[in-house]
Amino acid sequence: MRTILLTWFSRQFLGLQRKLEVAWKNTMENSRKYSKKRSAPKTPRVIVLRWGHRPYRDARLTTHVALIARALGASGLILSDIEDENIKTTVEKVTRNWGNDFSFEMGTPWKKVVKNWKAKGGIVVHLTAYGENIQASKVLRLIKESRKEILVIVGSQKVPREFFLEDFSDFNVAIGNQPHSECASLAVFLDRLFEGEELKKNFEHARMRIIPQKRGKKIVQHL
Amino acid sequence: MRTILLTWFSRQFLGLQRKLEVAWKNTMENSRKYSKKRSAPKTPRVIVLRWGHRPYRDARLTTHVALIARALGASGLILSDIEDENIKTTVEKVTRNWGNDFSFEMGTPWKKVVKNWKAKGGIVVHLTAYGENIQASKVLRLIKESRKEILVIVGSQKVPREFFLEDFSDFNVAIGNQPHSECASLAVFLDRLFEGEELKKNFEHARMRIIPQKRGKKIVQHL
Repeated sequence: MRTILLTWFSRQFLGLQRKLEVAWKNTMENSRKYSKKRSAPKTPRVIVLRWGHRPYRDARLTTHVALIARALGASGLILSDIEDENIKTTVEKVTRNWGNDFSFEMGTPWKKVVKNWKAKGGIVVHLTAYGENIQASKVLRLIKESRKEILVIVGSQKVPREFFLEDFSDFNVAIGNQPHSECASLAVFLDRLFEGEELKKNFEHARMRIIPQKRGKKIVQHL
Repeated sequence: MRTILLTWFSRQFLGLQRKLEVAWKNTMENSRKYSKKRSAPKTPRVIVLRWGHRPYRDARLTTHVALIARALGASGLILSDIEDENIKTTVEKVTRNWGNDFSFEMGTPWKKVVKNWKAKGGIVVHLTAYGENIQASKVLRLIKESRKEILVIVGSQKVPREFFLEDFSDFNVAIGNQPHSECASLAVFLDRLFEGEELKKNFEHARMRIIPQKRGKKIVQHL
């Protein structure tokens, strides 16, 4: 009787041990994934470089690009190679009314911006439909893991071939490989980079603030 | 000796049993979370309604809205209240070259579109900076859980107050409560609704297809 019991216990013991090993492995793997996700730096400093702006034709789209950069967590915009006082005025007005610091620079040649950025240890991400698919590749993880400041380049017209070269871009990233819009690409890239946290961030020194509502509009003004 | 062994085995057995229970509970919980996430309908049918289009002034932005809708998983665009053959031509050309079905309708009054949509059991989501914050509220979860077809309204000019009323919109959703761009709002909303899957979807019957690259451009053409 004792021998039977002993054999039964041994079998149970070995079976349990195996199951426990599998469960333990799974648990460890999950917790590793979780800690990886948590440890990614959520707020690298990002500056957006808008290339190829044509003052009249691109006025509204470049304004959208600037407002998207600001609202979705970037720290500033560089309008390269050209000056446009209208864009500057609009961006500064929005920042004055709606808060937070947001730098605006214009006229600097794009090659100089990129060279300076890299010299300071930052990386360059070029958003293009031809690049590595943000959903189907590990490109976003690599960018996050670099833990470096990011210069995001968005073009307007067809961009020079140099943008794709190692001398200039560290990553060529596609927000899907279909033709669409630099506005959409910038928005989705920033939303994924900051993991959504940018959308509930508090904008300091704001004169105007929207209080989210299910119905209607509510604005608080600090005059 | 046998008694000692038996006692030792019993203790190990009971200890293991407890650990196994905990591990099992964790595994079950994880798999429940996972299956919850999986069971959410990832591909509700979405049509985008563009309101307030002004043919000359908004030409490029409305084109961007249409291309974003198509590239990020919506099934079609309705340009309400007005006709614009240029937008129609551009959208149809892109769809012909880059694949998939994408419906385009124009001229129908927005109230009629909304009424018909609701009569067929669909819901209406109005994207506005004044609405419920997509990151800070549970509004996206509620939209997903409704498991209904979605009409997404994006405005161009200042929209009529009626858009915010229960008779018209089921949800007023803000992609952050800062002023930015209807292009960005639409892109982030679709990306989150489809959980990123839209970006690696295969576009059928395409004459042109981009092959994602780390460097340079690669297009395959089926003529």
